[in-house]
Amino acid sequence: MRHPKTRRGQQTQAAIVSAAAELMYERGVRATSVGDVLARAGAGKGQLYHYFATKDDLIAAVLEHQLEQVLQQLAAFRLDTWAGIRAWFDALLEGQRTRAYRGCPVGSLSSEMAAASAELASRVAAAFQRWEDALTESLQRMRDSKVLASSARPRALARTTLAAIQGGYLVSAATRDLEPMRSALEMAYDHLRVHRSGAADERVPA
Amino acid sequence: MRHPKTRRGQQTQAAIVSAAAELMYERGVRATSVGDVLARAGAGKGQLYHYFATKDDLIAAVLEHQLEQVLQQLAAFRLDTWAGIRAWFDALLEGQRTRAYRGCPVGSLSSEMAAASAELASRVAAAFQRWEDALTESLQRMRDSKVLASSARPRALARTTLAAIQGGYLVSAATRDLEPMRSALEMAYDHLRVHRSGAADERVPA
Repeated sequence: MRHPKTRRGQQTQAAIVSAAAELMYERGVRATSVGDVLARAGAGKGQLYHYFATKDDLIAAVLEHQLEQVLQQLAAFRLDTWAGIRAWFDALLEGQRTRAYRGCPVGSLSSEMAAASAELASRVAAAFQRWEDALTESLQRMRDSKVLASSARPRALARTTLAAIQGGYLVSAATRDLEPMRSALEMAYDHLRVHRSGAADERVPA
Repeated sequence: MRHPKTRRGQQTQAAIVSAAAELMYERGVRATSVGDVLARAGAGKGQLYHYFATKDDLIAAVLEHQLEQVLQQLAAFRLDTWAGIRAWFDALLEGQRTRAYRGCPVGSLSSEMAAASAELASRVAAAFQRWEDALTESLQRMRDSKVLASSARPRALARTTLAAIQGGYLVSAATRDLEPMRSALEMAYDHLRVHRSGAADERVPA
């Protein structure tokens, strides 16, 4: 991706990425043609190829765009408190409902992208890594502030939470039902709560 | 899908579905052309359109084929015991490793298929429903034989387990790493164990 110097150029590029993101989310990556993207963005072919060398380059920009949305949403919640995690999970559920059960904007790209080429597969891996890193940092803060027990392993918990979110999204999208996602997030929450500070004492009261 | 009457016809049809399943698993649904399928199956276009009215018809047969493999594997384990569940989870992990982290043969089709058409989306929903049903039956047997507590809800547990499996597969495929899948299955196992018979007594020993 080439970075535009003018404000107008930035707007055009953003419109192209945003149109591509919408279409790829609705139809899939390969089912979205460059022509479809141009029509929705109201841009010309020359503009698109000025900013993106290839369709793969555009796909990579779409992944980046969707990941940014996800990370921004994550940063909007106080994920170092139990109430913050609950609120974030509720927002994920609400998002899935309002998007007509289409699944995770990042996760739904992943299987098609990873199958397409080694380059796109490594982009997908890096995106999940960044997501896991962001979650790990939050959980580290929870451990530092003694909300989580000192024995809790933030990275392992982040990884498992991410898997629960993705599984919830996938089965919810496949069945067009919010319930699998709700129960997967419930499981993830319970799994985190096992590692709450003082949990061991609570389990065997004196 | 039209059912062949002769043995030779059945073999040709099976070869076409199996070739299509391999290719769609490796490359994605839409990235697989009818020509690619014929080349791998060693069949002619006339044979294919004799058995499958459209490409969507072939895609639906591929989903069916992959689901059958999954359900056959599931049936091979004694899922009404804890050791059986462990062994099944281990086999899922081993399968993901040997297939070079490509994800669930059913789950990886789901997002592309659901986006493609309402007809294919309903096929995906039905496939997940059958998987959930099979798992629910096993967990009901576990409850009947008092391995699970009488308060355990087999369908809710099946749904959550399925989401954990799918999430583990998806993040494992995205990161080309077995660890997220291992930890997702660990979480699912722990979640089931919460509902084991006598778990409440164990938590607060007399």
